[in-house]
Amino acid sequence: MNDLKHKILTAVEDDLSDIEKALCDNLTPYLDLVSEVAGHLLFSGGKRLRPLLMVLSARLCGYTGNYEKTFSTALEYLHTATLLHDDLVDEATLRRGKEVAHLNWGNSITVLVGDYLLARALSISAGTGRLRVVQILAELTENMSQGEVHQLMRKGDISLKEDEYLEVIRRKTAMLFEAACRVSAVIADAPQANEQALADFGYNLGVAFQMADDLFDYTLTTTDFGKAVGADLREGKLTLPVIAALRNAGAADKALMTKIIQDQNFSVEDFETLTGLLDKHGGLAYTQQVAAAYIDKAKQALAIFESSQTKEIMLDIADYALARRQ
Amino acid sequence: MNDLKHKILTAVEDDLSDIEKALCDNLTPYLDLVSEVAGHLLFSGGKRLRPLLMVLSARLCGYTGNYEKTFSTALEYLHTATLLHDDLVDEATLRRGKEVAHLNWGNSITVLVGDYLLARALSISAGTGRLRVVQILAELTENMSQGEVHQLMRKGDISLKEDEYLEVIRRKTAMLFEAACRVSAVIADAPQANEQALADFGYNLGVAFQMADDLFDYTLTTTDFGKAVGADLREGKLTLPVIAALRNAGAADKALMTKIIQDQNFSVEDFETLTGLLDKHGGLAYTQQVAAAYIDKAKQALAIFESSQTKEIMLDIADYALARRQ
Repeated sequence: MNDLKHKILTAVEDDLSDIEKALCDNLTPYLDLVSEVAGHLLFSGGKRLRPLLMVLSARLCGYTGNYEKTFSTALEYLHTATLLHDDLVDEATLRRGKEVAHLNWGNSITVLVGDYLLARALSISAGTGRLRVVQILAELTENMSQGEVHQLMRKGDISLKEDEYLEVIRRKTAMLFEAACRVSAVIADAPQANEQALADFGYNLGVAFQMADDLFDYTLTTTDFGKAVGADLREGKLTLPVIAALRNAGAADKALMTKIIQDQNFSVEDFETLTGLLDKHGGLAYTQQVAAAYIDKAKQALAIFESSQTKEIMLDIADYALARRQ
Repeated sequence: MNDLKHKILTAVEDDLSDIEKALCDNLTPYLDLVSEVAGHLLFSGGKRLRPLLMVLSARLCGYTGNYEKTFSTALEYLHTATLLHDDLVDEATLRRGKEVAHLNWGNSITVLVGDYLLARALSISAGTGRLRVVQILAELTENMSQGEVHQLMRKGDISLKEDEYLEVIRRKTAMLFEAACRVSAVIADAPQANEQALADFGYNLGVAFQMADDLFDYTLTTTDFGKAVGADLREGKLTLPVIAALRNAGAADKALMTKIIQDQNFSVEDFETLTGLLDKHGGLAYTQQVAAAYIDKAKQALAIFESSQTKEIMLDIADYALARRQ
């Protein structure tokens, strides 16, 4: 474990333990099978980053209502719902090192339990007593599902450009981070400027977080990453490392990359060749650099808040989004 | 077209046309593909019963806010979302006489468009400005997804009893009808007694509506019904006609019915044998009778309201739930 991770985990140990308890207490289905299927993914070692960001944002806004941990479960339930539906979508086989739910219980149950979690998230958001919180989460859900559809529409399309890639990850990932931070400002009755600052922090962090994920798919091993590396490529998902490298490559390398990308049964050697070309043509370095710029923007957004231990942890989390190895 | 249907359709012609327009105007995805997939089912000749019940209930409560048709789309979007997910779940091939969405666009897109519609429904419910409306719809969604899981858990289980069947259809169907009527009372600031009366009307109507559907699966032809008859049986869904007949049958007939029920590849002749046995052992008549009793309860619930044209249409709709042939 690196030092930054250790520092963050020590600082938020109690919060994470409260969030874990709240996730368990607020699930409340009447069917044990729903608990079982939801729990398979929900309690499989997720980082709890989204609820944690909500709890920390609430603290930064001076929220004293004492329900932030309960409310924060909405973010994790929503996230888990999209993972359940996305794993089906993506035909993924591994998530957090475990076999994905639909292989255990079938598509039907998995989709329905995803629906249940999505509905729980909205029920809990209504429990905040703030219509704006509901609106933010409902619109977020509209955007997330469309971001996924958008990504599927562009499956295997090597003409995908950086701005369209950004449009997809904005909707499928960044808006959830943005919402996690923004709703805390809403429940804390924070001034508009503070709400916007937190939303900007979450949004930019979310973009960088997804770019890092897309990078890890080419640079980490499966054991570290907890899901199969090369999975994006296998699913025809063109991400920034590939888009940037294709942009820079000459005709011969571009043709070779295209061949590997469009071959659903690429070999380990093919994958290594491709990774080498992503490196050679600056796709990996460029993604790292763009992600780092988003992290800088995220951190700058918090300038409006005075120094505090909470702010320091949030800045550390931003740094960790790129420094992490899972 | 029978007289009752004609009378209802004449009375609600303008409402249905407004609802149709509202369904189109409020869909608002940024991706054409989402409109296309959602529209495939959404604009395929649905009866619009749920939004219509909401509009009529609002009128019965003297609601004058002029947004009832916009709000009513939430019910239809939610209903359509569950159909998209259920058709995947059920591996159905026909819905309203058309090929189901997942056969055209695949599981992934279908699930995501269902999520989009579900989220739109919650966004629109937040637009009512009433947290209770959101709470009702979010809890409803929790219940509907669990009702479907419950049904899947009991797939092909001939020991299923009437009370458990009722628990399933209560959640998967009746609560949506209940919500459609109840939320109108909420947006109209109706007295608690009127809200409860409308909720009771919707709930009992919903139970009867589902029982009629379950009956039609054995008594109608595919052309009339718009979905394949015998589909419930093929999916291992044990409904009241079967449960009641199994309860009454002697050992020999019970064994024969069980054999057909448990044979996923039953023939047309097998299906006719089974239908004959459902009739012989009173399964069809019993279901008709129980459904009729729920319709009576639904109609009685409206006794609290003075006579009006709106109330008369609602009573007609209750009668039509059993008299319909689709």
